[in-house]
Amino acid sequence: MSLSIKELLSAVREGSLSVEEAERALRAKPFADLGYAKPDLHRRLRQGVPEVIYGAGKTPEQIVGILDALTEGGQEPILITRLSQAAAEAVKTKHPIVYYPEARIGRLGDVPKPDGLGDIVIVTGGTSDLPVAEEAARTAETFGNSVVRVYDVGVAGLHRLLAQLDTLLRASVIICVAGMEGALASVVGGLVDCPVVAVPTSVGYGAAFEGLAALLSMLNSCASGVSVVNIDNGFGAAYQASRINHMERR
Amino acid sequence: MSLSIKELLSAVREGSLSVEEAERALRAKPFADLGYAKPDLHRRLRQGVPEVIYGAGKTPEQIVGILDALTEGGQEPILITRLSQAAAEAVKTKHPIVYYPEARIGRLGDVPKPDGLGDIVIVTGGTSDLPVAEEAARTAETFGNSVVRVYDVGVAGLHRLLAQLDTLLRASVIICVAGMEGALASVVGGLVDCPVVAVPTSVGYGAAFEGLAALLSMLNSCASGVSVVNIDNGFGAAYQASRINHMERR
Amino acid sequence: MSLSIKELLSAVREGSLSVEEAERALRAKPFADLGYAKPDLHRRLRQGVPEVIYGAGKTPEQIVGILDALTEGGQEPILITRLSQAAAEAVKTKHPIVYYPEARIGRLGDVPKPDGLGDIVIVTGGTSDLPVAEEAARTAETFGNSVVRVYDVGVAGLHRLLAQLDTLLRASVIICVAGMEGALASVVGGLVDCPVVAVPTSVGYGAAFEGLAALLSMLNSCASGVSVVNIDNGFGAAYQASRINHMERR
Amino acid sequence: MSLSIKELLSAVREGSLSVEEAERALRAKPFADLGYAKPDLHRRLRQGVPEVIYGAGKTPEQIVGILDALTEGGQEPILITRLSQAAAEAVKTKHPIVYYPEARIGRLGDVPKPDGLGDIVIVTGGTSDLPVAEEAARTAETFGNSVVRVYDVGVAGLHRLLAQLDTLLRASVIICVAGMEGALASVVGGLVDCPVVAVPTSVGYGAAFEGLAALLSMLNSCASGVSVVNIDNGFGAAYQASRINHMERR
Amino acid sequence: MSLSIKELLSAVREGSLSVEEAERALRAKPFADLGYAKPDLHRRLRQGVPEVIYGAGKTPEQIVGILDALTEGGQEPILITRLSQAAAEAVKTKHPIVYYPEARIGRLGDVPKPDGLGDIVIVTGGTSDLPVAEEAARTAETFGNSVVRVYDVGVAGLHRLLAQLDTLLRASVIICVAGMEGALASVVGGLVDCPVVAVPTSVGYGAAFEGLAALLSMLNSCASGVSVVNIDNGFGAAYQASRINHMERR
Amino acid sequence: MSLSIKELLSAVREGSLSVEEAERALRAKPFADLGYAKPDLHRRLRQGVPEVIYGAGKTPEQIVGILDALTEGGQEPILITRLSQAAAEAVKTKHPIVYYPEARIGRLGDVPKPDGLGDIVIVTGGTSDLPVAEEAARTAETFGNSVVRVYDVGVAGLHRLLAQLDTLLRASVIICVAGMEGALASVVGGLVDCPVVAVPTSVGYGAAFEGLAALLSMLNSCASGVSVVNIDNGFGAAYQASRINHMERR
Amino acid sequence: MSLSIKELLSAVREGSLSVEEAERALRAKPFADLGYAKPDLHRRLRQGVPEVIYGAGKTPEQIVGILDALTEGGQEPILITRLSQAAAEAVKTKHPIVYYPEARIGRLGDVPKPDGLGDIVIVTGGTSDLPVAEEAARTAETFGNSVVRVYDVGVAGLHRLLAQLDTLLRASVIICVAGMEGALASVVGGLVDCPVVAVPTSVGYGAAFEGLAALLSMLNSCASGVSVVNIDNGFGAAYQASRINHMERR
Amino acid sequence: MSLSIKELLSAVREGSLSVEEAERALRAKPFADLGYAKPDLHRRLRQGVPEVIYGAGKTPEQIVGILDALTEGGQEPILITRLSQAAAEAVKTKHPIVYYPEARIGRLGDVPKPDGLGDIVIVTGGTSDLPVAEEAARTAETFGNSVVRVYDVGVAGLHRLLAQLDTLLRASVIICVAGMEGALASVVGGLVDCPVVAVPTSVGYGAAFEGLAALLSMLNSCASGVSVVNIDNGFGAAYQASRINHMERR
Repeated sequence: MSLSIKELLSAVREGSLSVEEAERALRAKPFADLGYAKPDLHRRLRQGVPEVIYGAGKTPEQIVGILDALTEGGQEPILITRLSQAAAEAVKTKHPIVYYPEARIGRLGDVPKPDGLGDIVIVTGGTSDLPVAEEAARTAETFGNSVVRVYDVGVAGLHRLLAQLDTLLRASVIICVAGMEGALASVVGGLVDCPVVAVPTSVGYGAAFEGLAALLSMLNSCASGVSVVNIDNGFGAAYQASRINHMERR
Repeated sequence: MSLSIKELLSAVREGSLSVEEAERALRAKPFADLGYAKPDLHRRLRQGVPEVIYGAGKTPEQIVGILDALTEGGQEPILITRLSQAAAEAVKTKHPIVYYPEARIGRLGDVPKPDGLGDIVIVTGGTSDLPVAEEAARTAETFGNSVVRVYDVGVAGLHRLLAQLDTLLRASVIICVAGMEGALASVVGGLVDCPVVAVPTSVGYGAAFEGLAALLSMLNSCASGVSVVNIDNGFGAAYQASRINHMERR
Repeated sequence: MSLSIKELLSAVREGSLSVEEAERALRAKPFADLGYAKPDLHRRLRQGVPEVIYGAGKTPEQIVGILDALTEGGQEPILITRLSQAAAEAVKTKHPIVYYPEARIGRLGDVPKPDGLGDIVIVTGGTSDLPVAEEAARTAETFGNSVVRVYDVGVAGLHRLLAQLDTLLRASVIICVAGMEGALASVVGGLVDCPVVAVPTSVGYGAAFEGLAALLSMLNSCASGVSVVNIDNGFGAAYQASRINHMERR
Repeated sequence: MSLSIKELLSAVREGSLSVEEAERALRAKPFADLGYAKPDLHRRLRQGVPEVIYGAGKTPEQIVGILDALTEGGQEPILITRLSQAAAEAVKTKHPIVYYPEARIGRLGDVPKPDGLGDIVIVTGGTSDLPVAEEAARTAETFGNSVVRVYDVGVAGLHRLLAQLDTLLRASVIICVAGMEGALASVVGGLVDCPVVAVPTSVGYGAAFEGLAALLSMLNSCASGVSVVNIDNGFGAAYQASRINHMERR
Repeated sequence: MSLSIKELLSAVREGSLSVEEAERALRAKPFADLGYAKPDLHRRLRQGVPEVIYGAGKTPEQIVGILDALTEGGQEPILITRLSQAAAEAVKTKHPIVYYPEARIGRLGDVPKPDGLGDIVIVTGGTSDLPVAEEAARTAETFGNSVVRVYDVGVAGLHRLLAQLDTLLRASVIICVAGMEGALASVVGGLVDCPVVAVPTSVGYGAAFEGLAALLSMLNSCASGVSVVNIDNGFGAAYQASRINHMERR
Repeated sequence: MSLSIKELLSAVREGSLSVEEAERALRAKPFADLGYAKPDLHRRLRQGVPEVIYGAGKTPEQIVGILDALTEGGQEPILITRLSQAAAEAVKTKHPIVYYPEARIGRLGDVPKPDGLGDIVIVTGGTSDLPVAEEAARTAETFGNSVVRVYDVGVAGLHRLLAQLDTLLRASVIICVAGMEGALASVVGGLVDCPVVAVPTSVGYGAAFEGLAALLSMLNSCASGVSVVNIDNGFGAAYQASRINHMERR
Repeated sequence: MSLSIKELLSAVREGSLSVEEAERALRAKPFADLGYAKPDLHRRLRQGVPEVIYGAGKTPEQIVGILDALTEGGQEPILITRLSQAAAEAVKTKHPIVYYPEARIGRLGDVPKPDGLGDIVIVTGGTSDLPVAEEAARTAETFGNSVVRVYDVGVAGLHRLLAQLDTLLRASVIICVAGMEGALASVVGGLVDCPVVAVPTSVGYGAAFEGLAALLSMLNSCASGVSVVNIDNGFGAAYQASRINHMERR
Repeated sequence: MSLSIKELLSAVREGSLSVEEAERALRAKPFADLGYAKPDLHRRLRQGVPEVIYGAGKTPEQIVGILDALTEGGQEPILITRLSQAAAEAVKTKHPIVYYPEARIGRLGDVPKPDGLGDIVIVTGGTSDLPVAEEAARTAETFGNSVVRVYDVGVAGLHRLLAQLDTLLRASVIICVAGMEGALASVVGGLVDCPVVAVPTSVGYGAAFEGLAALLSMLNSCASGVSVVNIDNGFGAAYQASRINHMERR
């Protein structure tokens, strides 16, 4: 059955589905138990989005095992984040994934047609922020969003940013990726009227303390409309931005 | 003139407004200069939202001065956050503000009719999180949102939270307010399919380190779709939630 | 002599053993002095548990030397924690240890029959927590406990955890192993009525700060009945859980 | 109905209670909704222990409201922690609580007869640790434990501690309360064979950093069998110790 | 004698002053010894600037004692920083100081005529940064600089800052005072070609951590030409800016 | 009996004292048990120094109780550190203590005649370090040392320090008390050939972080022969310096 | 066109250049857009200094691409910082850069003739600080400054520093490079009357915490006239020092 | 000339040496200038101890260069700390150093005959602390002390430590080396009456935070007579202990 939970609950409320049937549907193997992992077979059902495998700390064998279970459950596309080149090669021998080395992302299945409210614009402070930005970009595309990339527009050269003002003002959601002092989030946040999701990166040295400076900076942004995800978490930013870009009346 | 910047730019692009006229409009005193402060007279124009005065670290006289300038500029409603009871009394002698002591918020002008996509649901882990939650609630209402309060549903008594599952699943945006270990954000984030804005609070003691534990916890949420604002920043969460709740096709 | 200290003291109190004899017994080489180490030959006597060698920072030669001394003293089984594959190979040439690579644990001697009050249930938030969980599992088994493994039940997919509720409620002690935000400890702690020993892991990135986020989260758990051991300290959690699982009337 | 969940589940498994009846029992108002708080009316049912109100950050009026709801639900004894003298006076006008100023604890209802496996021994490093130790002691007594107090036995005067060795060796569980460098936990942990629950306190100055030094010290204890709760969390230590002291075969 | 050290050394090198005479000159009571303090009577000689008394942690009696010694030594003007209103009143009964309450600064003697290379421009992010900015302003004036104040131009409203671009571009040195995320330093640093001295302030809350966020942000500024002084150290910034504004060919 | 432990042990080794007699001597009430405290009646016996009461966190009643027990045990002089003026007044009504307000120290009994190897020289960076320096000075005097005070010789005015070089070079031990950046310890450590005990103080603001900056600075001193005690721990520095100043051949 | 912005603005003010012409000049491709980077083609125009490429986190291909764009834009000399030996070799196959391995700096184009007010003196605490000091030295030379190197003069051997006093007193600006406790900045700052730019280095171990100790120390310098840049940021220090060394009347 | 400074000053005071001669002696090339380093040729003169080269961050060539200069100046023995095996091999080709791999120390010249007041006893908590302990031991021996090693006596097995009580009580100075929670310093400090120099080590994992836990623990020692050096700084501890062990009447 492929009803979402909300549809199930509505059906129960309307009486077109008995409590027992609903219960059975939900009990029907919502996840596979592989011992070392319990991949979620209901995420699309429950949250309407592709399943995602966090690749770090998993062996290629474990990733293949999870892919086996998920594809059996009919889930696709499937995203694999933090996937090393070597692990990607190993996985490819079993599943026909596409691999984006800069983003360290693998994907099984096609990119869907964008169906969001508008563009997700991804801005970075510098060239070194690209891996995180690309992780965000590939994730957002896989989740059904059109993505515009505006890279290397840090505030030290404000004219580079202001030259893109038009693009920024047209954005539906902005993902702001910056390391060092992370000031880009505040400046962008003050210019636009759409939600900004800020991603501090571990780019920098010394008192950047592996992204801490940018993180604190973004959390204390004097501009409103900025919320923050974990350091280097391009995936998480894109996930949130995609949710926002798919808002609808409830 | 009360066109927004986007309307101005569109008019220029369409040729119905000359560059010179647009420039003049934008140059027309976008902020007042009071010496100690430069209140923004164009925020509504630029970002479509009420002006907000951050009350902490300002004398009642300074707040009154800024209110004078803003009301002259025609801005209303106006929100004053982090306003102490004593300062509120002093301000009231000059401007007819309404004051919410629990939220430490004052407001000049009426609450607008809600015009968002749905409800903003505010959940808290405990009773001690109320001041932050109420700051968020009053802000969200002033920005044109309908608010549902679900307080004291921390994860130590999961049944209290699950009893509100229906409300959570109907939410347009959820603001999750929690101190101590802040686990509520992860649990809520895993249950729903709408954006969650998490606010760590300084509630707790010892190794809570004034909200640091909850902040780190929320940033590392294993649930996706959670982004975070500063510790105790109920205002910022509501601002972001309101932007999300007013998303439209671009 | 193989009386425990309590037995010795009782005998002295009852007069069946003179102070001098007791003193001699206790003085009888309670540890070996190898220069670089002083392995405890009385731990079983004093605390009723197997001797444990902390393998990190010791050369294979030193480990073999300590094993020599302990086996001479009649101690067995003996656990070696934080033992690398390479060191294990070297040690195996001298002593017939069993090696568990995932747990990084070596063991000399047999696993005893479980004699605790019930099962120790080990839950993990994700697949990446397995090395720590297995260190706990192998330790608990060596200390005479029956172990149940419930892996990859992080709170982002609450249904996976709730599907194991029955197992959790039957546990004698629960060891909760989680990285990232460590919320699992609070949720489990709120569901059960047995002691929970929480182990933060260094799994995660960015603001996880090598396990700090999970550690602070677990220390601030809003659920009671949760106590915490060091980051990645699966051994320590199992040691404590085993003590609890062997409680008896005093 | 006053069956515990385990009793309920057993009855269902045995067929003496239908699933529907069990569900109804559990659904019967498990908590009261006071708006600002949702006191748990099922904690005793679910976890077999008294309800506890965390007094910090609550007004006397809120505490009285929660007491009203809990006593209506038949819960007693009820513990109120972190209760100031002034708040206690205010609460006393409505409910006949007993107040222990040193422990900052109020209690409604009688202390039950001890029914644990043995004594909970509470040791402190110094005199300044008394408030935390007394919070633990009063909590443990309210939860049905016999308590032995061994105060001011810090390791700088080891003879004071060793003079109590007999008491320590007889303990069922030990709660170790210490500030400054918290070394007491390691020394006690190495001497005994029962579980030790360590509570770092904020006693000390300078590089004690409000309890951080003691916390880190206890987490890194070279003695096994030590687990840790939050800084100054006497209540949490006693809660855990009581669970351990009431272990039974499962 | 009122030669500077460099003049003295030159005289010795040229032979117009014997080593013995130079030694005697330098030995001539370079500081007074009051027991609790050793005020420098040679600072103007050595560094060419007014003597400064750090008022925090000194009693009014101690401050008066130091003023006595300095005025006897002919030093004037003299600056007293971190001087509370109450202490200022007490000092005024003995020495005719002028007191600036917002800057918490007292001054004995007249403000000299500005003789620097140009203006020192002081910009602040918000109104709450004024005390620090005024400490800088009064210090700079006392050290012989003309000061231009540009307050409340935080980056969240970039137009307010850009409206002052002309003033910024004309500056000889800029002191940039900002709390919260301190992004102002990076933006200003990228716009101008003069040295920028950045002062993080403790303005903000939560993850601002008393100025730490702004401090780290400014240290990691992606704009070059920015150096940083201690949190809230308006005096130190002005001292350094004045040195820069009085540069001359060597 | 008033033999020291070493004398006791020697007597046993020489056969002039039986093991039983020695045991009895040591068992003879080595501390008093007041419930809230266990004052050491053997410290002079064991370590040859006066008993010390840490006054912080103790009520005047508790302090008086401990003084009662100690004077009964014949201990004198007795030092009470961290004693507030108010508490001192209360204690004086029962015991004739002398109180030094700047040092926050009370003392019962006379200052002994200095019997150390030489002078303990106490240097401070500034006037604000005096309370810590005086705590050290009064402690050292009570422990039988001659003390020389060299205050306000911070490295920013190196000539003030060098003017005291003779005093420094004659010192037996130097206690170096400094806040802010604590550089004084390194400079002094490089000049002298006697042991330097460094005390960081919490003097400073902003990034001094309550003494952390000075603490880290002193721990990383590029000069050798510098060891460090806790922030503001004037007592601890003097205790160590006194031990050093009383070294003798063993 | 090669007018600076200030020249442009002057021309507009004087009427010798129309607003439209000035606008066109400024709009004329101020930066190149390479997708992964947007190199600034106007930096010399805007700030009068060479363009700088931050080499860390960029591939040799990206660096070559940026060099292509900049040389096309006529920029020279060009500095490449944090350039590894291997990357330098790769870049050299396309552009004739000079590479300084100790400084990890590459440079395209000639070193200009020094035209500053005086010498920039670079002092280091130890030999291990050389890489950072050389980064500063090569940068300063490329920016048109004469540089004097005074290495290994840490304060533990004050005579080595004082032997260079003459050089220090003649300096126009001093760059002070030190790790460990960073005391050198305070001592130098107290001796001279020119601006000091302090660079903490990550030299040291243990509680040096990768440069944190030196950073905090320098920020809290008791000597005035010291401002600080990021840990190991030799480039940033030289950039600021060069701005100061090129001050002129405005 | 090989008089120490104190001998020089005495000679001047006694008139047996003119001021001019003394000055010349002191001016006689007190250090060599190698550009990258300025080795101290007067340390023995000034502080009476061997010269020490900190090997970390220096190339073998630089070390050889410094050895050349020092041996030319007649300094011997010379200690080289933090010297890798590979660097030691390279240095050996030029200078006949002895190398101790466990201590990572090289030494040129003979170990002098011990001439201190007594033994320096070095205790460690565990076997993993040996490299730091051996660094201390080799340093102390080179500085003329007799050393007693007591390794692996951590407080978790208190009987191992108490078995060495006799050795501890006979010590002149104790160096206490421990990682993890560092409790050994407090326990040892409470047992003995000689100065204790504590060295935290980076042994441990998780919340040991590379030695921070042990460092804070030792700084907060409830035992007096304990002072602390940097993490892993075995050399520094031995240097200080040697100064103490060579105390004499002044």
